[in-house]
Amino acid sequence: MIVAERIDAERLWARHMELARHGATPGGGVNRQALSGEELSAWRDVIAWGREAGLAAFTDAAGNLFLRFEGTDANAAPVLTGSHLDSQPSGGKFDGVYGVLAGIEAVQAIRDAQIALRRPIEVVAWMNEEGSRFAPGMMGSAAFTGEARLENFLSIRDAQGVSVRQGLCALHEAFRELPSRELQRPIAAYVEAHIEQGPVLEREGYAIGVVTGIQGKRTFRVTVTGEEAHAGTALQRERKDALLAAVRVIHALDVAMKEGGDDVRFTVGRLVVTPNAPSVVPGEAAFSIDLRHIDPPQLTALGDRIASLCAEHAGRCAVDVVELTNAMTLEFPQSIRALIRRSAADLGLATLDLFSAAGHDARFLHAICPTGMIFVPCKDGISHNPLESAKPEDLAAGARVLAQTLVALASG
Amino acid sequence: MIVAERIDAERLWARHMELARHGATPGGGVNRQALSGEELSAWRDVIAWGREAGLAAFTDAAGNLFLRFEGTDANAAPVLTGSHLDSQPSGGKFDGVYGVLAGIEAVQAIRDAQIALRRPIEVVAWMNEEGSRFAPGMMGSAAFTGEARLENFLSIRDAQGVSVRQGLCALHEAFRELPSRELQRPIAAYVEAHIEQGPVLEREGYAIGVVTGIQGKRTFRVTVTGEEAHAGTALQRERKDALLAAVRVIHALDVAMKEGGDDVRFTVGRLVVTPNAPSVVPGEAAFSIDLRHIDPPQLTALGDRIASLCAEHAGRCAVDVVELTNAMTLEFPQSIRALIRRSAADLGLATLDLFSAAGHDARFLHAICPTGMIFVPCKDGISHNPLESAKPEDLAAGARVLAQTLVALASG
Repeated sequence: MIVAERIDAERLWARHMELARHGATPGGGVNRQALSGEELSAWRDVIAWGREAGLAAFTDAAGNLFLRFEGTDANAAPVLTGSHLDSQPSGGKFDGVYGVLAGIEAVQAIRDAQIALRRPIEVVAWMNEEGSRFAPGMMGSAAFTGEARLENFLSIRDAQGVSVRQGLCALHEAFRELPSRELQRPIAAYVEAHIEQGPVLEREGYAIGVVTGIQGKRTFRVTVTGEEAHAGTALQRERKDALLAAVRVIHALDVAMKEGGDDVRFTVGRLVVTPNAPSVVPGEAAFSIDLRHIDPPQLTALGDRIASLCAEHAGRCAVDVVELTNAMTLEFPQSIRALIRRSAADLGLATLDLFSAAGHDARFLHAICPTGMIFVPCKDGISHNPLESAKPEDLAAGARVLAQTLVALASG
Repeated sequence: MIVAERIDAERLWARHMELARHGATPGGGVNRQALSGEELSAWRDVIAWGREAGLAAFTDAAGNLFLRFEGTDANAAPVLTGSHLDSQPSGGKFDGVYGVLAGIEAVQAIRDAQIALRRPIEVVAWMNEEGSRFAPGMMGSAAFTGEARLENFLSIRDAQGVSVRQGLCALHEAFRELPSRELQRPIAAYVEAHIEQGPVLEREGYAIGVVTGIQGKRTFRVTVTGEEAHAGTALQRERKDALLAAVRVIHALDVAMKEGGDDVRFTVGRLVVTPNAPSVVPGEAAFSIDLRHIDPPQLTALGDRIASLCAEHAGRCAVDVVELTNAMTLEFPQSIRALIRRSAADLGLATLDLFSAAGHDARFLHAICPTGMIFVPCKDGISHNPLESAKPEDLAAGARVLAQTLVALASG
């Protein structure tokens, strides 16, 4: 109990408000893209707060930020906690940020309580979880865990033509005083705190969600190629209108994916038309597909229909489909879930077992160490939106459970 | 005949190639947006070539460029010829440019032939014909003729947030040595030379098209508003997905407009999704509609269906439809058409009467003075495309007919 009592709810809330200044948008939202100037500013705050808590900052080649609290056994693999500081273009104040700030708060409470732990604890902010500036997302955790090779990300460019390599160079130059450690280090365990991004905890009146697993997801990039032509002169039947072809394709995909029932999540979030001028028949239309389903066989079956549906409905245009991600539903180990449940129970907090419909860096950590997640309620389940909100007391409760869980993990 | 003989086909061709350097794109195309640095560079060349031909340059508040050849009666209303120097983002070397360069070439031939004409002749390059950077297009000729008030254009912004006002200030600052004359001056007649942007002249083997009129056009801006949400968590049935709604709307519009038959031209050239991130359900999708038909009652009937079709298919999203242009099909006066036909016949060139499916500044001039257009063949009818091409001898033939026509008009 003594650790949990040291959690400072006001400080934790104030830091959320402070971080939201970096990339603040009108309407209370946040646009803090991976490796942007705004994220670099956020790093400075987070490093300073870590220092207040006695944590030593370092980075790695993938642009992940670590804040380390030493244990009594310097050679023991660390327990990791954290999340990410980047946001969607129209993101909110809590997604990702909460996991990092709750981690710092938890470690500060452990330190203030003067508890000696065998293992080091490291608070991490993963590089590019969101994938909105550079696709795909979760690059930092993928490179850290060996899920993907960092080299394969370096040439990926944002809409302005800036590459991940350039972004990483700028980051490392701005923080050249930080030591750099290797990727794929041994990790003892990983626990990530996050807002639920769904309405269940709030509606059912639970303070803590014990995350049972993460929904599977397949993502695709589809490029429809037609032929530019004059909107006034080109005969309708002779056109190769890439946008109308894309519209037919997306319409057909929407109808087909709906047949999969209520558990399908099908989103075309990004569509870019070229040359995108009112009086030119579009020569190209490129769009993203984000397809999720809790049931692996169904996700496989639905995703496998995409390429043929695209080809079938593209008419006289050419269509190219590239799969970017194919990640099936996973289940976190019972041991970590039980530990989180027990930590909450010790604090008198009721827990609900919950599945995560959103993706998280915890997916990749799950492959290399015992991993779990703690959810806290957010207002109306709204996320990836300036209206994203949470209560100070709920954030603090989650940090208390996290602190107890970290103590247990780092003692072992 | 003596004037036509002075047309220098090589010089005319060389100037097209030279101008294409301003805004050159890979693949031989041109991206020279209205009021851009590239257009300003093109102005410098055109002013210098006008000076070689003894033409005095001036501008007006709407950013139109005039090159004036004096007549014997300085008070007589001038005869105007020209077109525009801006291009589509993926435009070619001839659209617009040809009308300006043929005008300079024609006046230079008249001067070299030492023919005295009563009326002044002015070669004009209209501001923003294309409407791709700032919508709508044909702003310069609209303001010049009083079709629209310049004030109503000044606050319109491009995708980077730059306003027409800022663009005009930069233009006038760059050319502060040029005198400025008033808008809505009296004009005796207007003749515009242009590539056909269709395949007919080339296919049928005619060097000269006498344009009978311009196809009617209605343009709209449609904004579909939904609600941003997380692609992994938001339930499909609770979403307000603005892009899927726009897809349904565009699909329904496409089907409905096709019912209008082969003469309908329906184009969604521009579509912008917000926030346009792969894992965010889109909160907004805004698109353009360009609808053309030669028959006014049919254009009216089809255009009038758009708002209700949008409302009907937007589902749970809100939809807003704004009409930007409503211009019916017009017919140029027989007198000018006969004059162009006679000028060509005098040169032994066969002409074909042709309707213009594309819009031109001549539309607005038609409202204030006798107006006509001369078409020359272009390769495969391709336009608004880097592959746009024409033959030097066809460009020269058009300039000869233009010179003869201008002599006749400026003598009267």
